[in-house]
Amino acid sequence: MDILKDYLQRFEEFLNYSEYDKRFKNLYLPVEYTLQNAGKRLRPLVVLMACEAFGGRVEDALPAANAIELFHNFTLLHDDIMDDAPIRRGKDSVYKKFGINSAVLSGDVMLIQSYDSLSSYSAELYKKLMLIINENAIKVCEGQQLDIDFETRDDVSIEEYILMIELKTAVLIAGALKIGALVGGASEEQSEHLYQFGKNIGIAFQLQDDVLDTYGDNPKVGKQKGGDILQNKKTYLYLKTLELLEGNAKREFENLYTSKDTNKVQKVTAVFDSVVIKEYTEQVKQAYLDLAYSHLEAFQLELDKKKVFKTFAKFLLEREY
Amino acid sequence: MDILKDYLQRFEEFLNYSEYDKRFKNLYLPVEYTLQNAGKRLRPLVVLMACEAFGGRVEDALPAANAIELFHNFTLLHDDIMDDAPIRRGKDSVYKKFGINSAVLSGDVMLIQSYDSLSSYSAELYKKLMLIINENAIKVCEGQQLDIDFETRDDVSIEEYILMIELKTAVLIAGALKIGALVGGASEEQSEHLYQFGKNIGIAFQLQDDVLDTYGDNPKVGKQKGGDILQNKKTYLYLKTLELLEGNAKREFENLYTSKDTNKVQKVTAVFDSVVIKEYTEQVKQAYLDLAYSHLEAFQLELDKKKVFKTFAKFLLEREY
Repeated sequence: MDILKDYLQRFEEFLNYSEYDKRFKNLYLPVEYTLQNAGKRLRPLVVLMACEAFGGRVEDALPAANAIELFHNFTLLHDDIMDDAPIRRGKDSVYKKFGINSAVLSGDVMLIQSYDSLSSYSAELYKKLMLIINENAIKVCEGQQLDIDFETRDDVSIEEYILMIELKTAVLIAGALKIGALVGGASEEQSEHLYQFGKNIGIAFQLQDDVLDTYGDNPKVGKQKGGDILQNKKTYLYLKTLELLEGNAKREFENLYTSKDTNKVQKVTAVFDSVVIKEYTEQVKQAYLDLAYSHLEAFQLELDKKKVFKTFAKFLLEREY
Repeated sequence: MDILKDYLQRFEEFLNYSEYDKRFKNLYLPVEYTLQNAGKRLRPLVVLMACEAFGGRVEDALPAANAIELFHNFTLLHDDIMDDAPIRRGKDSVYKKFGINSAVLSGDVMLIQSYDSLSSYSAELYKKLMLIINENAIKVCEGQQLDIDFETRDDVSIEEYILMIELKTAVLIAGALKIGALVGGASEEQSEHLYQFGKNIGIAFQLQDDVLDTYGDNPKVGKQKGGDILQNKKTYLYLKTLELLEGNAKREFENLYTSKDTNKVQKVTAVFDSVVIKEYTEQVKQAYLDLAYSHLEAFQLELDKKKVFKTFAKFLLEREY
């Protein structure tokens, strides 16, 4: 998606993480380290894209994009503590490299900087954007809590799982679209439909992620194929398979999933196949995609400007790695 | 200070920490636990006091007071992780009771709720208050980082120490005064002088805290007399004593301070006494108090309304425990 490359260049030029007060270098060095080790910058680019689609200037959306990128990275610093994750984007996580205290405190300051990044907007727009970030930030914390809870629960419902991925992953993409749209001059109605579009795309994206973890050809960087299975993760694939099985087969599958069987990935995949879980999941993913597109239909905007959102959804959901 | 009791009652009635979405109880239970185990609620009451002094209504300042209280408690949750502190206000700290992950995530959500608490204000005032909170929140993180750095540094200057207590402790009291004043209708000039008043009172307060830790009659709840000495804390007393000593005496004192000598508190206090450190510290404390009062003189307000700030400073600084 070529337009994303243009946005990326604009965003990288705007980002400034190396100029900080050196008296506090132990606070800001992990921030610099995090922002330097860029991910796809997906969320900030979405802000720029949405702004431009509604006739706004990319440069006006840069501070909002920065806020979203800082917020996202703040969650990574703290999530890596909670998940005991030593690797992030192929390098040591902040928690691993600088210690827990740094990951806590530098994460905190990134969250505050995220809010601070919006201060160039007029009071009216500032408040509007802040409330959206706040509302979704609280949801992200709630989603992360559910994810932690699920590790030790054996009664997680599919409904709860969908809620968890909605809160933990989807609402930030949705919020990025909404914020960008508002900076670009979208109406409340337009921006709310775009939020719902983004939320449902986000859920579909996570369901696809679950499928790719088991069935993808090229595991993502730093991720082992079948990693979810090895970590006993309660993904959609697992929960739906449990629902489809009965009696002994169900109990055996539960035992297998938490076992340390050396052929575990292969064996679990065989059970997945026996209930055609890949097709089930693709169907549900498609249902969320349809719901997303219905929100894209529901508001007024020139067709060629809407097209970018469709292209973006395809870009997100057609990756095979 | 009777007026504080009235404010406290109003604030407690406003606080509502037990009504939360029970699906996320593991996220919000530590928040409830923290807010229930009230401290002195000093900072939120200061917001109410400042608002009323400028002719505002207490009820209008309650959301701002709540934001400050939530912010302060967020810092405690994360500080207790970093300081490995098992006790807070005489009870298990959140980190001790619920684990590190809860202290991180519930702390995060408190910070976000703190910002969210301001949403009832008009866009203009909202932005004004948010920028003050943000600016000071970043300073609090910077102060905490310095405090951590100092633990492993042996070249901390007195200037740096004062900067650390200014950032870590004083700016939040200052910010609380400024925010309350602005809600009450103060001008930029009035509120900025009040900020400087609060900042210098805060520094004086912390210097007094250092003195009381060694020389106080009644150690604070959960604090051992001479606790700073036992923990090798680089307080004003320690740093100034180092500056006053020379040659062998200085080296011996440095060694004593980091030793595990069973009579360490007594011996260190004897060195403190030999350089009349208590008097030195009281003098510096008085200088900050004078500076604080000069800011109180510098802006226009009826004398009887200014009086409450003087009473408050006395209340803070005349405690003997």
